[in-house]
Amino acid sequence: MIRKICVVVTARASYCRIKTVLTEIRNHPALELQLVVAASALLGKYGCILDSIEKDGFCITAKISNLLDVDNYTAAAKTTGLGIIELASLFENIKPDVVVSIGDRFETMSTATTASFMNITLAHVQGGEVTGNIDEKVRHAVTYLSDIHFAATEKAQSRIIQHGKNPQSVFNTGCPSIDLALQVKNASEYCDSAASERKKPDVIEKYLVVMQHSVTTELQCTRKQIQETLNAVKILNIPTYWFYPNADPGSSEIIAGIREFGEKCNDHLIRFVKNFEPLHFLKLIQSSCCLIGNSSTGIREASFLGIPVVNIGSRQAGRERGSNVIDTDYDCGKIAEAVKNQLLHGPYPSENIYGSGHAGQKIASLLATIPLSTNRKTDYL
Amino acid sequence: MIRKICVVVTARASYCRIKTVLTEIRNHPALELQLVVAASALLGKYGCILDSIEKDGFCITAKISNLLDVDNYTAAAKTTGLGIIELASLFENIKPDVVVSIGDRFETMSTATTASFMNITLAHVQGGEVTGNIDEKVRHAVTYLSDIHFAATEKAQSRIIQHGKNPQSVFNTGCPSIDLALQVKNASEYCDSAASERKKPDVIEKYLVVMQHSVTTELQCTRKQIQETLNAVKILNIPTYWFYPNADPGSSEIIAGIREFGEKCNDHLIRFVKNFEPLHFLKLIQSSCCLIGNSSTGIREASFLGIPVVNIGSRQAGRERGSNVIDTDYDCGKIAEAVKNQLLHGPYPSENIYGSGHAGQKIASLLATIPLSTNRKTDYL
Amino acid sequence: MIRKICVVVTARASYCRIKTVLTEIRNHPALELQLVVAASALLGKYGCILDSIEKDGFCITAKISNLLDVDNYTAAAKTTGLGIIELASLFENIKPDVVVSIGDRFETMSTATTASFMNITLAHVQGGEVTGNIDEKVRHAVTYLSDIHFAATEKAQSRIIQHGKNPQSVFNTGCPSIDLALQVKNASEYCDSAASERKKPDVIEKYLVVMQHSVTTELQCTRKQIQETLNAVKILNIPTYWFYPNADPGSSEIIAGIREFGEKCNDHLIRFVKNFEPLHFLKLIQSSCCLIGNSSTGIREASFLGIPVVNIGSRQAGRERGSNVIDTDYDCGKIAEAVKNQLLHGPYPSENIYGSGHAGQKIASLLATIPLSTNRKTDYL
Amino acid sequence: MIRKICVVVTARASYCRIKTVLTEIRNHPALELQLVVAASALLGKYGCILDSIEKDGFCITAKISNLLDVDNYTAAAKTTGLGIIELASLFENIKPDVVVSIGDRFETMSTATTASFMNITLAHVQGGEVTGNIDEKVRHAVTYLSDIHFAATEKAQSRIIQHGKNPQSVFNTGCPSIDLALQVKNASEYCDSAASERKKPDVIEKYLVVMQHSVTTELQCTRKQIQETLNAVKILNIPTYWFYPNADPGSSEIIAGIREFGEKCNDHLIRFVKNFEPLHFLKLIQSSCCLIGNSSTGIREASFLGIPVVNIGSRQAGRERGSNVIDTDYDCGKIAEAVKNQLLHGPYPSENIYGSGHAGQKIASLLATIPLSTNRKTDYL
Repeated sequence: MIRKICVVVTARASYCRIKTVLTEIRNHPALELQLVVAASALLGKYGCILDSIEKDGFCITAKISNLLDVDNYTAAAKTTGLGIIELASLFENIKPDVVVSIGDRFETMSTATTASFMNITLAHVQGGEVTGNIDEKVRHAVTYLSDIHFAATEKAQSRIIQHGKNPQSVFNTGCPSIDLALQVKNASEYCDSAASERKKPDVIEKYLVVMQHSVTTELQCTRKQIQETLNAVKILNIPTYWFYPNADPGSSEIIAGIREFGEKCNDHLIRFVKNFEPLHFLKLIQSSCCLIGNSSTGIREASFLGIPVVNIGSRQAGRERGSNVIDTDYDCGKIAEAVKNQLLHGPYPSENIYGSGHAGQKIASLLATIPLSTNRKTDYL
Repeated sequence: MIRKICVVVTARASYCRIKTVLTEIRNHPALELQLVVAASALLGKYGCILDSIEKDGFCITAKISNLLDVDNYTAAAKTTGLGIIELASLFENIKPDVVVSIGDRFETMSTATTASFMNITLAHVQGGEVTGNIDEKVRHAVTYLSDIHFAATEKAQSRIIQHGKNPQSVFNTGCPSIDLALQVKNASEYCDSAASERKKPDVIEKYLVVMQHSVTTELQCTRKQIQETLNAVKILNIPTYWFYPNADPGSSEIIAGIREFGEKCNDHLIRFVKNFEPLHFLKLIQSSCCLIGNSSTGIREASFLGIPVVNIGSRQAGRERGSNVIDTDYDCGKIAEAVKNQLLHGPYPSENIYGSGHAGQKIASLLATIPLSTNRKTDYL
Repeated sequence: MIRKICVVVTARASYCRIKTVLTEIRNHPALELQLVVAASALLGKYGCILDSIEKDGFCITAKISNLLDVDNYTAAAKTTGLGIIELASLFENIKPDVVVSIGDRFETMSTATTASFMNITLAHVQGGEVTGNIDEKVRHAVTYLSDIHFAATEKAQSRIIQHGKNPQSVFNTGCPSIDLALQVKNASEYCDSAASERKKPDVIEKYLVVMQHSVTTELQCTRKQIQETLNAVKILNIPTYWFYPNADPGSSEIIAGIREFGEKCNDHLIRFVKNFEPLHFLKLIQSSCCLIGNSSTGIREASFLGIPVVNIGSRQAGRERGSNVIDTDYDCGKIAEAVKNQLLHGPYPSENIYGSGHAGQKIASLLATIPLSTNRKTDYL
Repeated sequence: MIRKICVVVTARASYCRIKTVLTEIRNHPALELQLVVAASALLGKYGCILDSIEKDGFCITAKISNLLDVDNYTAAAKTTGLGIIELASLFENIKPDVVVSIGDRFETMSTATTASFMNITLAHVQGGEVTGNIDEKVRHAVTYLSDIHFAATEKAQSRIIQHGKNPQSVFNTGCPSIDLALQVKNASEYCDSAASERKKPDVIEKYLVVMQHSVTTELQCTRKQIQETLNAVKILNIPTYWFYPNADPGSSEIIAGIREFGEKCNDHLIRFVKNFEPLHFLKLIQSSCCLIGNSSTGIREASFLGIPVVNIGSRQAGRERGSNVIDTDYDCGKIAEAVKNQLLHGPYPSENIYGSGHAGQKIASLLATIPLSTNRKTDYL
């Protein structure tokens, strides 16, 4: 019997991180893909991914618009509450055999809560890692609601088992984001011509990329944090692609900081961007001199691609990282200094901490064959 | 500065389990109690606790009616989603310093998600235990969303620490339900006369108590499960107080089974009851010959009170228990047999697994003094 | 181009009232039916209609479980709020050209609000009538949100026009409930054998039918109101089919009254029933001696079938009625007296106030051909 | 006994329109004000009114953040659904005797639905008027849900009565927005110095004001509509205060149009503004040469203040207006032409169509004395 696998994508970043899994599920003869797109993934200002999804040839089973206006203290909670309500009806109507929850963004709590409360087998991708931010709490809470675990590293796998989860349900598949990075790395030439016409970055000789999100446990510092990085980049005076932040509490502060900077400085070296299609995005990273900020892209994909990274603050604290990462504080001078050191150093050798690029296949195979149950007992070793 | 402590009570059972904590918070000079009553705790058919609360002299800060009609597959999830939405507004308006989440019922997920997503310090009572049912998942997920942990046993405490939680935030206070059991045990005579006039059980020489809830991970067996126990009790032919189930998925099946049995058998030895005030309830347990079913009362309070228990099925699987418990399957003959053995054995010596009756005080003291933070890092030993 | 017509059924009673419209939409070559089943229509205790729908061969596009536990002051409002949220996502996903809102139950407010706020053409069946209860407010509010009006009587039609609605959008189609009544009337013999085996009432020589709902604007009197009717029926001492009430605020009071009466009196002449399939239901009405209560069935179908009716209280106040109705108060003696008079009188001649039995066809034809717009201006004559 | 009057303010514009009513309720010895602030009124980007409210000395009973991100087709409906859910809990907790619903913005549907479904007396300000847009539907639907009506004009009053509402519950009090206009008009000098320091417009000799909102029933034309007005203003080449739009479906299109224009033209004569305190706002209008757009301010306050208005499109179609208004289409040339004519004409004599400036007092007096009921019958004359 064909298993119905429902994957809920709630943000631009999650799509990049699950794309190869979606492809492999779609192509697997024993699986049927039910793709749900929700929350900020539907909104233009956070880099709506509907176009990418269409271009990638996926059918969308349902869209759920549950994002509350994030310029508000209660938005993350209410968005999650709404998500639960709507996913419950959806699951009742489409009756998935397995629901897949991705990563650690706050909205994944909706997916995990709904599936587990409805007694549907829940699989979690990217559990067991350690970071800062509310992500840290969400990730481990989702691990506990889940029945099957696709960890991205060996340490993550053993951490999930240490949490009392049955080892037979915990797999180290590597991170699906590395699958895409492998495609980019393998491409001797970048030639997705149809797409590139439309959105190709005007690739320039030497440039930086910045991805900096708010830290929900340090919200009172958000404006200062973004300011330091903006100043550092101004000092560096190198062409820069600067990505708008995710839809988190605090993101409106970051956007306001960016806008004010943009108006005041009118710095033509900085280009603020919202979204790139997944492969373009990775190509852009691959060709950059240094990635700056607090995104997990700097930790995962960048270690595989060997890109120098300056990681700022606590958001990625504790996450396994390669030799390509220099950690620093939210301090304009230290950031600029670290970037200069990375520019001097240049590219790093590729590391396989987050897998070797075959996570999608492994996950789809496991989803097709693993016995399903919602009753796996916690089992303390 | 006085700390505002918000406690969210979502069910009859949770009130018994937190009552002494409420009292101690209310009486503590450095604390202000914000009491929220929600979900099934507001509905007559699940044993509305508003009367008990009023009688116990607590002021209710807000009521939140979020229970969906539970005769439905999506009700637990939607109730939780609604709870999150409404608690978010409430917390925004009453601005608690600490939110307290109780136990492992599915609705506590609302409390924990909302507080953690709003960056409010979250304290959890009764984490770290092991059972079956969706409770098992909820309990550990809530542990991960929480910042402060009031475990009820030593093993529970060390399990939470094993999960990577900072040992300085994990306390073994004992279970507040034992505080009430101690009061009952100490009372040489049962003399809350005003109350007893109204609701006093017609205490009879020798009787059984049954408390059996649905198991959300075994919903397809619910009707059979309740039928076996009903038949066992019929065979035993002893006066019995039979409590209506909690508001869980599957509870309508249990109620239907009970009603049908009631109509068919018209057995005057069985009295079906919805609710007792917490102390009356414990007195009833204390004077019973044997407690039957799958309630945690059989594990916690009963071990302290030394009451013989026949525990059925997987719902309490893994929870630490005293010598007073005989475990059995959902099998009419085995249940009856086990009860007969317990009746022959009679009362057991008191055990202090879940504390010695001072949890309320300890918890209130800690809430008044422990440094507050939402940023405690997971820390793997 | 085929028009997608979405009909939202939220209660047992609404299904009877729209069934022939559903059939005609399904059979119309230029229309596609999108059938949504929601709220109490999904719950067993309110007479779940899923079986009837399946038997009648309709496909359900989506189920939406939004009923809050009605034993609560806020339930009607919250059920409506949830309905709006969920219907919004559904409409976004299934993109209907026209949404059809039925009658005046409180949940229809969800349907009407969502469609109008999403700028989807809204058609309303059974607007323009006058009654008591919250229904009165809901019905006229829905008229204002609607773009197309299928009134059941001439007076209702002209009342809608008097409200300023464009006469070209207001049609007197008759009430679809009369279509079913016509089928029953025409059937010389009742012979839906497959169905009748399963649920056929044990038809008896002479019996009464009672249908009494709570009146939301008189909630404090609900228990007294049901008591009077129970006493009247007890006095009459004639076999009686007594229908459980709709899921309204106050319905739990009615159910409690019925249950208590059932336990005390153990009157074997009264049979309490939850649901009949639409045609069985009407057959039961057709063969009864007198219909008692405050249901609109006594006003609509009964006038066409010529059945004597004793209508109690304000719930139907102002609704056009035939000569078959005697109005009375919630007074046990007066009710019994009125029923006795109706029994003496016997059947009445059929009246066509609510149409002649072709509403379904007319409505489907209009839905297929009327120009669609959400911008019909209010136009005061 | 003191009556508790709950007023729900959901937008910047509604606050201006109800402010004198709030003041009079607060000051009335027989009334207690319960002020609820919700939806876009809480968000900075729509001109958060919390500062104004604080400055005006009102206490806020509760804040409800229910605005979904409006860049989405479902947002208006979902915002309304959430509003209903949250207001239901709030009303249950604060138990108002009367709820006041303001005007015709879509969110008022939450207020009206919740109060009427909870059987709380509902009063409506500004019913009975005629316009275009979804407002037209909302306004009349709210009239039907309401029990007491405070109309702003004589015609509006008689229209409500024509709708079948009991004349004894329908009052022509005038519009409270005129109360503020009267204060501005009376002030020989504008001298609220504390406030003016902070936000005083740099008053210039001669300037235009533009207020243009999206029309929900013509959403596909939104971008074109705003473009025409932007071009017209560019042609006119006069200093201009341009207000950001309300939080309606389509508002993100308007904002995008404004932003693009701002970036391209860099026209220093146009100043885009989000919010002014109510009195400053009216002062700004009073001193302007011409008000352009489709806001009801051009119809109400402007007629009283005698300000020339160019009203564009269908949004205000049907609303009673003074001689100060020239109507035109969304056409750059026609708009510019009409403005030139108004500049030639100059100020108009004051007209009292929407009252003489004492609505607040009248409404508060009536709220204190009118018999309360939720059971007023529709009564067709």
